[in-house]
Amino acid sequence: MFSLAFGIGTQNRKQEWLEVYYPEPLINPSDSLLAIISSLTAYQGGNQAMPLDPSTIRSLAEAINIDSQKQILEQFQDASSPLVLTVLEHDSSLTSTPEAYLKLHLLSHRLVRPNQINLEGIFPLLPNVAWTNLGAIDLGEVEQARISARVSGNLLTVSSVDKFPILTNYFIPKGVRIADSARVRLGAYLGEGTTVMHEGFANFNAGCEGPNMIEGRISQGVMVGCGSDLGGSASTAGTLSGGGNTVISIGEDCLISANAGTGISLGDRCTIEAGLYITPGTQVEVLDESLQQVMLAKARELSGQDDMLFIRHSRSGAVQCRTNRQAIQLNSTLHTHN
Amino acid sequence: MFSLAFGIGTQNRKQEWLEVYYPEPLINPSDSLLAIISSLTAYQGGNQAMPLDPSTIRSLAEAINIDSQKQILEQFQDASSPLVLTVLEHDSSLTSTPEAYLKLHLLSHRLVRPNQINLEGIFPLLPNVAWTNLGAIDLGEVEQARISARVSGNLLTVSSVDKFPILTNYFIPKGVRIADSARVRLGAYLGEGTTVMHEGFANFNAGCEGPNMIEGRISQGVMVGCGSDLGGSASTAGTLSGGGNTVISIGEDCLISANAGTGISLGDRCTIEAGLYITPGTQVEVLDESLQQVMLAKARELSGQDDMLFIRHSRSGAVQCRTNRQAIQLNSTLHTHN
Amino acid sequence: MFSLAFGIGTQNRKQEWLEVYYPEPLINPSDSLLAIISSLTAYQGGNQAMPLDPSTIRSLAEAINIDSQKQILEQFQDASSPLVLTVLEHDSSLTSTPEAYLKLHLLSHRLVRPNQINLEGIFPLLPNVAWTNLGAIDLGEVEQARISARVSGNLLTVSSVDKFPILTNYFIPKGVRIADSARVRLGAYLGEGTTVMHEGFANFNAGCEGPNMIEGRISQGVMVGCGSDLGGSASTAGTLSGGGNTVISIGEDCLISANAGTGISLGDRCTIEAGLYITPGTQVEVLDESLQQVMLAKARELSGQDDMLFIRHSRSGAVQCRTNRQAIQLNSTLHTHN
Repeated sequence: MFSLAFGIGTQNRKQEWLEVYYPEPLINPSDSLLAIISSLTAYQGGNQAMPLDPSTIRSLAEAINIDSQKQILEQFQDASSPLVLTVLEHDSSLTSTPEAYLKLHLLSHRLVRPNQINLEGIFPLLPNVAWTNLGAIDLGEVEQARISARVSGNLLTVSSVDKFPILTNYFIPKGVRIADSARVRLGAYLGEGTTVMHEGFANFNAGCEGPNMIEGRISQGVMVGCGSDLGGSASTAGTLSGGGNTVISIGEDCLISANAGTGISLGDRCTIEAGLYITPGTQVEVLDESLQQVMLAKARELSGQDDMLFIRHSRSGAVQCRTNRQAIQLNSTLHTHN
Repeated sequence: MFSLAFGIGTQNRKQEWLEVYYPEPLINPSDSLLAIISSLTAYQGGNQAMPLDPSTIRSLAEAINIDSQKQILEQFQDASSPLVLTVLEHDSSLTSTPEAYLKLHLLSHRLVRPNQINLEGIFPLLPNVAWTNLGAIDLGEVEQARISARVSGNLLTVSSVDKFPILTNYFIPKGVRIADSARVRLGAYLGEGTTVMHEGFANFNAGCEGPNMIEGRISQGVMVGCGSDLGGSASTAGTLSGGGNTVISIGEDCLISANAGTGISLGDRCTIEAGLYITPGTQVEVLDESLQQVMLAKARELSGQDDMLFIRHSRSGAVQCRTNRQAIQLNSTLHTHN
Repeated sequence: MFSLAFGIGTQNRKQEWLEVYYPEPLINPSDSLLAIISSLTAYQGGNQAMPLDPSTIRSLAEAINIDSQKQILEQFQDASSPLVLTVLEHDSSLTSTPEAYLKLHLLSHRLVRPNQINLEGIFPLLPNVAWTNLGAIDLGEVEQARISARVSGNLLTVSSVDKFPILTNYFIPKGVRIADSARVRLGAYLGEGTTVMHEGFANFNAGCEGPNMIEGRISQGVMVGCGSDLGGSASTAGTLSGGGNTVISIGEDCLISANAGTGISLGDRCTIEAGLYITPGTQVEVLDESLQQVMLAKARELSGQDDMLFIRHSRSGAVQCRTNRQAIQLNSTLHTHN
């Protein structure tokens, strides 16, 4: 059994789900919990999102002996919004909006890691929603809601029109700071000790181990290792648009300085100087400890190596990678087989 | 007859307009509609913004037979906020705040295009406003409102202090996503199929045809063609501050990669590599299909050409434009006449 | 006597301060005001933050004859939130959350300038807070508040999880525009005539003299002189993470163009071309008025000089500083003594 969670959400006027909030999603729930659920609900196995009525909620609240889940169910008894029980027997392709929201929650609750669950089919299952001060509103209903609010002396403000909501409106992971919440999507994985500054960004299915100082952009699929910093406006090349098709990663104790960027993976202890963008096709002069050039490589051949310092020489204009003998040996192997 | 619209707005304590919301602005309204308006209001021709009282609203709601306008007027009958009818016979220089707001609406409703209407005089007519969770507040009144909110156990939050409000608090164009609404001003033109990611930005009187992926900044006056992408933090040089005085444009199927930028116009199918900024004065080695240098040009001489790929050579540090014979021939003409 | 202020704030369930709002902080308050305070409160000298009960508030409101302070106290009489009187005899290290908030207010009210007050100990005294539409909430209490809001049909939205709140939720300095308030922290100093565009950012204890166009990032400690522009995504290297340990400054009438950055201080009338990042270790060819190279310097040797134009030569790829004779003479001195 992969995951289950009790949720409360928003539907449009056609009773289609716009979003679901799961206060305490569970990974690998116990057989005993599953037995209770099977006996009190229509659950028959497989992946299912089932609406919950008040009497089922009551029975579940009485039967379940996991404190945190029991408390949620007790509070759900008074809810006017639609409730749902989502059970995922397998981590397979997504088939409904509540399932998609559950997987995004699992990532942000650190119950699973980016690139390690099946998110196939997520885009069409996430409706594009107007995220307003009055909650999630269907795009076909928002303009009427806006006029109604205005004439009654109220205000409808729309902070985002997107398929993904922002993380902090669903959960705040332990030990993080997020200076501007608009910049971190639900589904981002932020390890303990992460600070996302105002210019930082983390997409869904992406994130960092913590501790990290994130002032740049973590694209979908990218994971940043412990102790690494992304400087202001630093870019990690993504795969959803404009970039290549290889998901990159950043190792530990790296620094991608302000306004720099990378289209290749970095191992541990790598630095890219401020303002320099390394693309996979960048030709790089590889220098050893005594600054002697030992090879010329395409940046993609250096992908994933440790101990690399990338600069653009300020006099010759050439992109250089300063590294050590061990790194170069590894590189040579890659280079030869390229 | 250029445009007309019924609006509801906010005034400060001196009954000066702070902002106006027009649910359904009309371009080129019909003569019959105009006849009704002339008979029931004080409208006598020209460009005018006229306050509307409840009985006039009622008469107009009864007389007008355009469903969408009728419905708005019916809802306006219950409004406690000030109402306005703004009629623009001509697209001439702006003379009032309601007029300025109407033109911004026309752009965002895709009823007119950037650079094709007269926005002369807009800056002084748009008051600098505190945009709060309690609505638009005059800057001279906001600190008292803040204390009052606090002592009564409420909260005044100010999301922006600006002359321009954000688009999505007035209208959500069809078929767009805007991940962080704070980044798109009312007056931006976003074509169907536009996604503005968190790092994207669109100023008023600027925008894109759609479909587009906008993760960079569209400066005032700049229009981006269909199928073009702006990568994260990509910059289009503006004319309001710091930049030059030529409004640039981006053609179709272009890619301005992450952290790149341009101070010249691009035709169709152009690419600027990640991290490279092309200013008008940049000297560029122009190379043909076989990578032979055929000329040396200032970037401004290449402005608007198709099929250009701009890179900074990673070994020589020289800025290069790789293009094809046809493009070069056009360029040569420009070059000669420079 | 350094400063005093009456504040109203938020405490968590353990009665610990989360934040304090001071409507009208005073710098160098008069002896007569201090005498009144000493006679009506427990204040005995030194730096103290004292809770205020309704009867003390009433007595103070009657006794104090400074209109603005009297009015605040009169309004405070009806408050349900906790009230505080914070008195700082000396500008010494911080010892409490109300003191830290008072110093941040002093900076943003332009009563003191960045780098000129003692902010020692500020980080541990600022609790990490969930800034929500329902006010500041302790991180240990926010998830329960979220569920409660949802089941009662309301919404808890969290705009930031940070030690520092945003400026405009506390005060709007006179004569400024801040397009996206999330980007300016309380404690930023924004001079009259400042426009912070959507991509601009100002940290606490940092800012600009005004008038300025800020579309880039002002890091902690950095001060920008009058008439200078930071282009979109322009970076000023900070000292809190990733950067060096020297706080830099920008003089008057400078332009750091879009996507450019500096790790050295600039004097007056300096320009850095779009996309170029000057780090302290960058080797720079220094050219005179006739573009003859007169020296080769590390950028840190040029720190603080006037009349410098930095470019990366578009053909040779070399970083150059074009300047004038006088600047070069000053530089030579620095260079010699390096």
